[in-house]
Amino acid sequence: MNSSNRRPIGVFDSGMGGLTVLRALASRLPKERFVYLGDTARLPYGTKSAETVQAYALQATRLLIEQGVKMVVVACNTASAVALPPLALAPVPVIGVIEPGARAGVAATRNNHIAVIATEGTVKGGAYLRAIHALRGEVSVVQQPCQVFVALAEEGWTDSPVTIAAAERYLGPLFEGPSAPDTIVLGCTHFPVLAAAIRQVIGKDVTMVDSAETTAAAVAEALATHSMRNANGRSEASNMRFFATDSPERFARVGAIFLGRSIDASAVELVDLRSVPGS
Amino acid sequence: MNSSNRRPIGVFDSGMGGLTVLRALASRLPKERFVYLGDTARLPYGTKSAETVQAYALQATRLLIEQGVKMVVVACNTASAVALPPLALAPVPVIGVIEPGARAGVAATRNNHIAVIATEGTVKGGAYLRAIHALRGEVSVVQQPCQVFVALAEEGWTDSPVTIAAAERYLGPLFEGPSAPDTIVLGCTHFPVLAAAIRQVIGKDVTMVDSAETTAAAVAEALATHSMRNANGRSEASNMRFFATDSPERFARVGAIFLGRSIDASAVELVDLRSVPGS
Repeated sequence: MNSSNRRPIGVFDSGMGGLTVLRALASRLPKERFVYLGDTARLPYGTKSAETVQAYALQATRLLIEQGVKMVVVACNTASAVALPPLALAPVPVIGVIEPGARAGVAATRNNHIAVIATEGTVKGGAYLRAIHALRGEVSVVQQPCQVFVALAEEGWTDSPVTIAAAERYLGPLFEGPSAPDTIVLGCTHFPVLAAAIRQVIGKDVTMVDSAETTAAAVAEALATHSMRNANGRSEASNMRFFATDSPERFARVGAIFLGRSIDASAVELVDLRSVPGS
Repeated sequence: MNSSNRRPIGVFDSGMGGLTVLRALASRLPKERFVYLGDTARLPYGTKSAETVQAYALQATRLLIEQGVKMVVVACNTASAVALPPLALAPVPVIGVIEPGARAGVAATRNNHIAVIATEGTVKGGAYLRAIHALRGEVSVVQQPCQVFVALAEEGWTDSPVTIAAAERYLGPLFEGPSAPDTIVLGCTHFPVLAAAIRQVIGKDVTMVDSAETTAAAVAEALATHSMRNANGRSEASNMRFFATDSPERFARVGAIFLGRSIDASAVELVDLRSVPGS
């Protein structure tokens, strides 16, 4: 086995939402080590321009590469949507969340009608639309920006009446009638923690594609294909390191919602990305 | 009259919420000209550290001074809470939103019990607490962070069932019982647009202090005291100029909710604050 396979996998997001991807990765790949970076000083990316997000994503990727990662997972839909082409020039493999989600959506739909829910930035960029149509041109895609879901997820109101009311308002009209989508892609890493509330509104017959799970599957596949798995690693909590660009305390508190287990704030390292070249 | 009185008043916020303050200012001071800066590339400030917010606020203030303003209004509770001491060194008067809101709250309460609702950053900084206690030490203050309100306001869900449910969850328990606060301070510039929903939950007997209105009153008073009013100005729409650090289109669309009238996206100038010294 190549010793460089022991290197960790780098994961970054604008904030804590990407921890749903880390959670799925750690569950599927328990022997791997991970370095997670949340660019909390500059979140959210979802409402920012493509140029700004590209510069931020380049800085995040550079920091992870400095930490010696063997692969970078862009656990942020907005950054995956706009920054993958420049990031693909990095000296390690880079995987985003859009392509795996689009692939799983296309595999699941029977009536060729998919709903994609995401941040405003992701919807506006149309990356899911393009990724789905590249796979199957005849699929009809309806995109719904769900910006309030981000705040609800960060507040930890995972199945509150507030969240159900918001899901009703965003999704109720979309899933009415005989030609409603039979598949929904959760196109924002915050949304998996709201799955139960979303399920209440869309009903049990709609297939829900969680891009955290599908990305973890894609990473596992890429590691296997390129013989990059850490075959001798151990499954332990210390397999995860955390970096944040602001407030480790908030990162630990809100991050626990998305990671599904507590995070020790004193173990979250504060870093400054502003001095890292972004273009 | 001093010709320098014709200079505009500078107003800045992390985003569009401060437009509620601009709206109150323009309504009270129709002859004044205004330059508004929304630091949308780096919003929200409410979840960021004091050091980061101070650096950002200094950059915003410098840009406004470069635009020739005669006064700077910090239309952002988070920045007012943590950045006023360094900003006070600026060569023009600087007014924040905390002190006027605290003053109005203390003037309004009869049972010496005030609720302050704000972002997490403002609550954690405790600036309203200190400002209220500096005015009247025996007032009991309960602070409630209402982070989801920010997203609801930006979505324009001003009186939706979602907003009422969120207000119920945040505020219902606070306003129960005989010793409930008789005054609520809206300690975030986003919140005035949610006033109707908040009112539904807290009932008609609680005095609501809108820090946009109270800040406008404080600015009017300061202009009068220092003989800085633009006595010969005209009341017209062109009295307002807008700068944003990201996406003029989103600034115009979401900003209209807070300003209470439409904004032409092509009239919003994109600026980059990153090159402005921040310390």
